[in-house]
Amino acid sequence: MKYFVLGATYIIRLDAGEKVLESLRSLCEQDEIGAGVFHGLGAVGEAELGWFDAGAKDYQTLRIEEPCEIVSLHGNVSRLDGKPFLHCHVALADRTFGVRGGHLREAVVSATCEVVLTRYFEEFPRRKDGPTGLYLLDLKQDGD
Amino acid sequence: MKYFVLGATYIIRLDAGEKVLESLRSLCEQDEIGAGVFHGLGAVGEAELGWFDAGAKDYQTLRIEEPCEIVSLHGNVSRLDGKPFLHCHVALADRTFGVRGGHLREAVVSATCEVVLTRYFEEFPRRKDGPTGLYLLDLKQDGD
Amino acid sequence: MKYFVLGATYIIRLDAGEKVLESLRSLCEQDEIGAGVFHGLGAVGEAELGWFDAGAKDYQTLRIEEPCEIVSLHGNVSRLDGKPFLHCHVALADRTFGVRGGHLREAVVSATCEVVLTRYFEEFPRRKDGPTGLYLLDLKQDGD
Repeated sequence: MKYFVLGATYIIRLDAGEKVLESLRSLCEQDEIGAGVFHGLGAVGEAELGWFDAGAKDYQTLRIEEPCEIVSLHGNVSRLDGKPFLHCHVALADRTFGVRGGHLREAVVSATCEVVLTRYFEEFPRRKDGPTGLYLLDLKQDGD
Repeated sequence: MKYFVLGATYIIRLDAGEKVLESLRSLCEQDEIGAGVFHGLGAVGEAELGWFDAGAKDYQTLRIEEPCEIVSLHGNVSRLDGKPFLHCHVALADRTFGVRGGHLREAVVSATCEVVLTRYFEEFPRRKDGPTGLYLLDLKQDGD
Repeated sequence: MKYFVLGATYIIRLDAGEKVLESLRSLCEQDEIGAGVFHGLGAVGEAELGWFDAGAKDYQTLRIEEPCEIVSLHGNVSRLDGKPFLHCHVALADRTFGVRGGHLREAVVSATCEVVLTRYFEEFPRRKDGPTGLYLLDLKQDGD
């Protein structure tokens, strides 16, 4: 991971073999980033995607083990139990240019991955929600 | 809808049963947001997508009525006839992880939807365009 | 191309027949933009996508010659050999609402294309990388 910091914005380059979320999470831990948004593009060689099954209150998963372009990668940074929590969704295109996507569990960079992360000097807290089983953003009602 | 305001940025959480565009539009009306951009991720249980048919000058539509991950959701806020106008495109993944996408007409949240909206303290005007039949951003030529 | 400048942000409208990347590149040249990020949505009538083949160190390409919604378009601006370099990935939906995507080589607008570009008053340099054959962001290690 190489990066350049410009005010509240990180320009990040991940190289072959690096894990996308693990790398971003370690950067957030290091710089105590508790709130932010990020976007990325590039290419990965492995990925695990999730599709949320509301009945089971859990994710179905798909493992991809072939080179794919990161068509879109978009996520946010919040904080759960004092640690950075990354929520990220992704669209991946294989050599047929067909696109599969979903919740990103993890992906391993093949060629390069360029991420722009903008931090906020705040914390977005998350908390486990009983009815859905998900860790939801713990925001107050209507901005109050 | 719950949200948190951080300067010009709204961190928004929509819950099960809430309509994505209707909710965002009501927030824009309430806070008089006439220009902005937004990105989101999450999951929906219903959606209506559009594909613009230039010959017919109208959208072909697809109704989706199954749980889908919001792979990407990206839009802008402008103003048409004094009211907030949201232009938004979306990619949705069903349980096969296959992705369908297009112009978002409306979608209903299933589990959660997290949107980050950045407002500009300006107005981006829109106006109906004769040749295309679309409501286009009414910008001047070449930034003049 | 019409646009409106709001601080460091360009709100851009491209019209039928205009090339997406060529137009953005010419704007970057004109205003000496050497670093930035952009997002877009709209519709195109032609596009050429790339999928990076690491073995061949080159892109496989797909030409699309039918009207498609731009489901997502995300890229960054950097500088290579003194000129603006745009790296952009895209997801496109055809009339079946199926999505194809990848590295965007170029696309021609059909109806309209709305791009929001945020510039940074810096330069993100790029340099050809031997092992991958790609032009990578030339960032220092670990932000030092």
